[in-house]
Amino acid sequence: MISKKIEKALQGSSAIRAMFVEGKEMAAKFGAENVYDFSLGNPATPAPAALNQTVKDLVDETDSLELHGYMENAGYTDVRAAVAENLNRRFGTKFTAHNLIMTVGAAGGLNIIFKTILDPGDEVIVFAPFFGEYRQYAANFDAEIVAVNPDLETFQPDLADFEAKITAKTKALIVNTPNNPTGVIYKPKTMEQIGAILEKKQAEFGHDIYLISDEPYRELVYDGNREDFLTKYYKNTIVGYSFSKSLSLPGERIGYVAVPQEASDSELLIQGMEISNRTLGFVNAPSLIQKAVARCLEEKTDVNFYDENRKKLYEGLTKLGFTCIKPEGAFYLWVKSPVADEEAFVNEGKKFRLLMVKGSAFGCPGFVRLAYCVSHETIKNSLPAFAKLAEVYGL
Amino acid sequence: MISKKIEKALQGSSAIRAMFVEGKEMAAKFGAENVYDFSLGNPATPAPAALNQTVKDLVDETDSLELHGYMENAGYTDVRAAVAENLNRRFGTKFTAHNLIMTVGAAGGLNIIFKTILDPGDEVIVFAPFFGEYRQYAANFDAEIVAVNPDLETFQPDLADFEAKITAKTKALIVNTPNNPTGVIYKPKTMEQIGAILEKKQAEFGHDIYLISDEPYRELVYDGNREDFLTKYYKNTIVGYSFSKSLSLPGERIGYVAVPQEASDSELLIQGMEISNRTLGFVNAPSLIQKAVARCLEEKTDVNFYDENRKKLYEGLTKLGFTCIKPEGAFYLWVKSPVADEEAFVNEGKKFRLLMVKGSAFGCPGFVRLAYCVSHETIKNSLPAFAKLAEVYGL
Repeated sequence: MISKKIEKALQGSSAIRAMFVEGKEMAAKFGAENVYDFSLGNPATPAPAALNQTVKDLVDETDSLELHGYMENAGYTDVRAAVAENLNRRFGTKFTAHNLIMTVGAAGGLNIIFKTILDPGDEVIVFAPFFGEYRQYAANFDAEIVAVNPDLETFQPDLADFEAKITAKTKALIVNTPNNPTGVIYKPKTMEQIGAILEKKQAEFGHDIYLISDEPYRELVYDGNREDFLTKYYKNTIVGYSFSKSLSLPGERIGYVAVPQEASDSELLIQGMEISNRTLGFVNAPSLIQKAVARCLEEKTDVNFYDENRKKLYEGLTKLGFTCIKPEGAFYLWVKSPVADEEAFVNEGKKFRLLMVKGSAFGCPGFVRLAYCVSHETIKNSLPAFAKLAEVYGL
Repeated sequence: MISKKIEKALQGSSAIRAMFVEGKEMAAKFGAENVYDFSLGNPATPAPAALNQTVKDLVDETDSLELHGYMENAGYTDVRAAVAENLNRRFGTKFTAHNLIMTVGAAGGLNIIFKTILDPGDEVIVFAPFFGEYRQYAANFDAEIVAVNPDLETFQPDLADFEAKITAKTKALIVNTPNNPTGVIYKPKTMEQIGAILEKKQAEFGHDIYLISDEPYRELVYDGNREDFLTKYYKNTIVGYSFSKSLSLPGERIGYVAVPQEASDSELLIQGMEISNRTLGFVNAPSLIQKAVARCLEEKTDVNFYDENRKKLYEGLTKLGFTCIKPEGAFYLWVKSPVADEEAFVNEGKKFRLLMVKGSAFGCPGFVRLAYCVSHETIKNSLPAFAKLAEVYGL
């Protein structure tokens, strides 16, 4: 007596989450130090000490009814104002509290955006490879995900394919840069081209197409790349953000949506998202942690920690003969499977206690994703296992 | 360019939330002490001191990656085990961690239950008057709410009407006792009758009908009424709970769903709800506060505080000539409007800075709801305003 949608979902549940559970089981069996679990994007660096101190300060300083009570569905006004000011200073935007809606993480944010703009049958374009859950989020509103091919050398989007796939049903494009799962960054030039294509297609079809920027990895950039904020490339950009990675708080479910004043129907979007936040059952982002992040907007987790992992893993695997896309951001390494069937490669890896996620989970078979948000030890100790895996394939 | 559903929702948004905003505006204008805001179910008693101390202890004692990190979508295993043990001891149930899913409040819980069991066109029965948001939650899955008439003297459900309204499309019944908005409690005898009707109708239609017990007010009972747990009345009962009222944490969004092993398809329900928790965008209940409530399951907010308000308001209004249903639980007083059009009555009240919510927001015109989760002062100071309101109607 379960719903048809869930019946179907049970058959093809998240490969990433399944691997997470499998990893826990292997860790229990072989000892955590003997399992090289690259499956889940669970931060490996602790939340900044200031964040934890702030939580304690807030409990001491704040009236309990205020700290744990209901507020507007969009979140505390002072919290939203603090986020707006922080973004304005960093990115030259012109937000006020009114443009911000605090959300239950980026996943909550994407769902309230989708609920607000999508009708059944609408299409949302994504650039493959992409975070597989987008498909479920769109399905929540009976909308379809349309995937655009990547350039298989650079993993930048194929813009000709993008342009060809925009139809009268296209309601939005999701851009995720720095990218999960490839680690690539879409450069300003690319973003300008994407903006120009969207402008042209909006005019052609006579309706708005929103660019949804999903930016949980905004602050995780390496090699001199700069943090970017996409509203400057295209007027109809809605930003979804999460503090999960930048402050290492994925379990706390805290993020926000920013709707620029200049976006079409921005007032309706904002009001619609407030309603969606309530009616989808989020009601509001968790209260104490809202106040905590507002005081820690200048804080950042230790990006150098990930950078070190990135270099070691990329260099290690490249030396072993694996073909890897050099990551510029986020904490994922995208590796070409030595055989076309990357699921066989993933299963072979398990024999050496290497947990990787198949590329088909991201709409891009033939590759695997390694989440290098693990300890330095795990990186170091995994390399001999990867060496054995390379041997299997004669690399 | 917003969705059709949201366009419609913007026209008929939450009367309760609108009143919340109006109350804030009136408080800014006249001073909070001069506005008698009975509109929102926002607890008036602080979270137990032990809860706040626990939050600080957890930050001091717990590894940050564990405290703020991802866990299974159902929540931390130790937290779920603690909740299961607590329920078993109090209510003689036989839960393990496996039967519990930690949720983003009761609203999150109801949505994952609905997503898991409802197909488009399905019907969910509720007893009027009822929490208006149920309608939106059902609409998220294109299901319909079917309201059963109350007995207008006792506000117990009309069981003949209930039985008549069960159809082949009925997938679930929501029971909310102690009830929002009436404050009544459905007695064991009533629950037994409801269980018997459901059993009979399941047999008649040849499919399962789930009883969804929405119990955020479980611990708020007065006059010697006892806390109840509905799984004992009917096998196919799913419980949704929130710590919002019992621990005064509404802003933190923390609750759980309990699925008894004996419910039909319990394994599929549990797995489906884990998936729903993830794909609806909740991912998991907020992590720190999960651990905090698990250590405070024996704690309870000051129920006597509400009881005092309940008595004073009920007695005060009854003496003034208003017809009130005597509340046995929760923190709401359900008052008969002196005129058929209760919206006119609500507007008249505003002239005396009395904020009440119209009964039609709960599917029951002709009545208003007063949320007496306010300060003792507000109760005391509101009575002269109610006296003036009574005068208007010649009571």
